[in-house]
Amino acid sequence: EENRGGGDGYDDDDPYDDGAGGDSANIYGKYEYLDHTADVQIHAWGDSLKEAFEQAVQAMFNYMTTDFSTVEMTDEHEVEAQGEDLQSLLFHLMDEWLFAFSAEPYFIAQKIEITEFDTENFRIKAKGYGEEFDISKHPQGTEVKAITYSNMQIHDSDEKHEVFVIIDI
Amino acid sequence: EENRGGGDGYDDDDPYDDGAGGDSANIYGKYEYLDHTADVQIHAWGDSLKEAFEQAVQAMFNYMTTDFSTVEMTDEHEVEAQGEDLQSLLFHLMDEWLFAFSAEPYFIAQKIEITEFDTENFRIKAKGYGEEFDISKHPQGTEVKAITYSNMQIHDSDEKHEVFVIIDI
Repeated sequence: EENRGGGDGYDDDDPYDDGAGGDSANIYGKYEYLDHTADVQIHAWGDSLKEAFEQAVQAMFNYMTTDFSTVEMTDEHEVEAQGEDLQSLLFHLMDEWLFAFSAEPYFIAQKIEITEFDTENFRIKAKGYGEEFDISKHPQGTEVKAITYSNMQIHDSDEKHEVFVIIDI
Repeated sequence: EENRGGGDGYDDDDPYDDGAGGDSANIYGKYEYLDHTADVQIHAWGDSLKEAFEQAVQAMFNYMTTDFSTVEMTDEHEVEAQGEDLQSLLFHLMDEWLFAFSAEPYFIAQKIEITEFDTENFRIKAKGYGEEFDISKHPQGTEVKAITYSNMQIHDSDEKHEVFVIIDI
């Protein structure tokens, strides 16, 4: 949710509840902005499907700061992901990294290396090289709210190894 | 479309077309950001449906600059809108004003006054008080790309006069 132009930012369902029309704090008028939604589609590729997966995660991290070059590779963090097919495997891989960023250890990776890529049992182990996110060091980019399955595409052939993932921002 | 982090910003369908994998200008990796979409829901209300419509347009204009107080009411501009029902009437009213902003006279209104509000034939005449948009005077807000019918709601009863309109940004 976003509030602009003096919107009063109340979150209750009915703006009339407070008896003042709900607009008391909006000096410009009787309106507010609700339900802001946004997404962006990541397209990542590589010389193998493994590399395309790694690149997709890196693309997500690149979105979290406006200057990716400020991220130093002084730390490592590891995640494991498990899926039931390639799509859910990619989803969970990205979701694990999003979680590592959003909660302890607040990790932002400059580089991702998939150390185990098991596309028969749909298991991945991946190592990230980066550091703890620090707002004073890493200019805040766009908040990534969620990974989605929406229009997810995974292409893996001799000519092409690429993925498309839409993330909510 | 948004490009971040050194994305090379090409728009062709196939990044492999250029024979270099399409990633030559991305110093960080083999990825790009496509199909950025966003919307926000405007909720506007008033002591009458007419006022709710006026407020919805003002809310849209408020979104176009981060400091609405910089918009002076030194000029006037008029639009007419025609619909087949209340929803399309509201849609076309907002669309006319969006057009007045996006092309000549590049008009941004601080205040909207509906001078004719014919809800039988679904016709509106409206006057806007504002001025030509000037990027050096009005801090650029968010670009409004389109008005949508998505989940549009118009409530007009003794207790409530309110509208909900989702705009693409």
